[in-house]
Amino acid sequence: MERDKALKIVEKQLTEHRYIHTIGVMETAIHLAEKYGENLKKTELSAIFHDYAKFRPKDVMKQIIIEQKFSPLLLEYNSELWHAPVGAFLVEKEVGISDADILNAIKFHTSGRSHMSLLEKIIYVADYIEPGRHFPGVEEVRELAEESLDKALIKSLQNSIMFLLKKNQAVYPDTISTYNWLVLEGGRTI
Amino acid sequence: MERDKALKIVEKQLTEHRYIHTIGVMETAIHLAEKYGENLKKTELSAIFHDYAKFRPKDVMKQIIIEQKFSPLLLEYNSELWHAPVGAFLVEKEVGISDADILNAIKFHTSGRSHMSLLEKIIYVADYIEPGRHFPGVEEVRELAEESLDKALIKSLQNSIMFLLKKNQAVYPDTISTYNWLVLEGGRTI
Repeated sequence: MERDKALKIVEKQLTEHRYIHTIGVMETAIHLAEKYGENLKKTELSAIFHDYAKFRPKDVMKQIIIEQKFSPLLLEYNSELWHAPVGAFLVEKEVGISDADILNAIKFHTSGRSHMSLLEKIIYVADYIEPGRHFPGVEEVRELAEESLDKALIKSLQNSIMFLLKKNQAVYPDTISTYNWLVLEGGRTI
Repeated sequence: MERDKALKIVEKQLTEHRYIHTIGVMETAIHLAEKYGENLKKTELSAIFHDYAKFRPKDVMKQIIIEQKFSPLLLEYNSELWHAPVGAFLVEKEVGISDADILNAIKFHTSGRSHMSLLEKIIYVADYIEPGRHFPGVEEVRELAEESLDKALIKSLQNSIMFLLKKNQAVYPDTISTYNWLVLEGGRTI
């Protein structure tokens, strides 16, 4: 699918603010894909559609999680996690994208998972550091991303987990697994 | 078993520094047990023996973990975790204590676990705040322990997890489960 067509589809699903964020993720992800050797077309489509389900009503997302037998754990944790797996499902169903690498990059862009693919790492990090992001620590992760994608990913996970701990919020098990995998196994995917 | 006999047994297993720590944990744990309504004798013995295996050689602990089919995950994580389950095993085998509540309080005093018992919480928190402990944040947990054992436990878990994150060290899954259980379910044990 061409970039313009994909952007037109996703624009209808998002607020203006979130659409501008999506463009930022796309440009950042393509930069990282060029740097670390990922397929540019897959990267572009993953980035464009990563937040496709962001504004679906919670009850609709909940129903999809139950009907599609996604991890029931999702429902116990922050609903901010839901749009990622639901997005992957709806991008396949409504947009017709069936590439598993793209769908997984959408599915795991919020939680991460151990043994993430390069594409999944790129979308996760691009979502964290795109130029529209402004929060403490983001500049450090931007700099790390130029040096090592894994170092950027570890730092962004550490920041996100500490943010949750400081707010007395639960930490989704996949997120801790991703961090543990990176520090214990150095992010080896095989 | 009488306190004096138990202390004599454990003294032989520990350095002087660690023995003094053990006395501190015992006194703190008994205070918490009186405050929160736990059996004082079980509390006393759990505290006295919580670090029983602290100075066993790593290879011996590793062998026990394998032979006793303890979670193989332990071997992937920090060896500081090993003395707790190995201690519970050796306290039963060598000292002859068979009370499951006491053995569990020893077994989970380093990692915690979701659905911890009151006794397990008391030993975990007492180990963290006994008077010999001096590190940033310990005074806040001491104060919280006078108000709510769960609040003290959450804060000590948050501190411990953040400490590991800042050192790029892995976080044992049981520790995150304990924290998530406390913030998601309020530490309900039933």
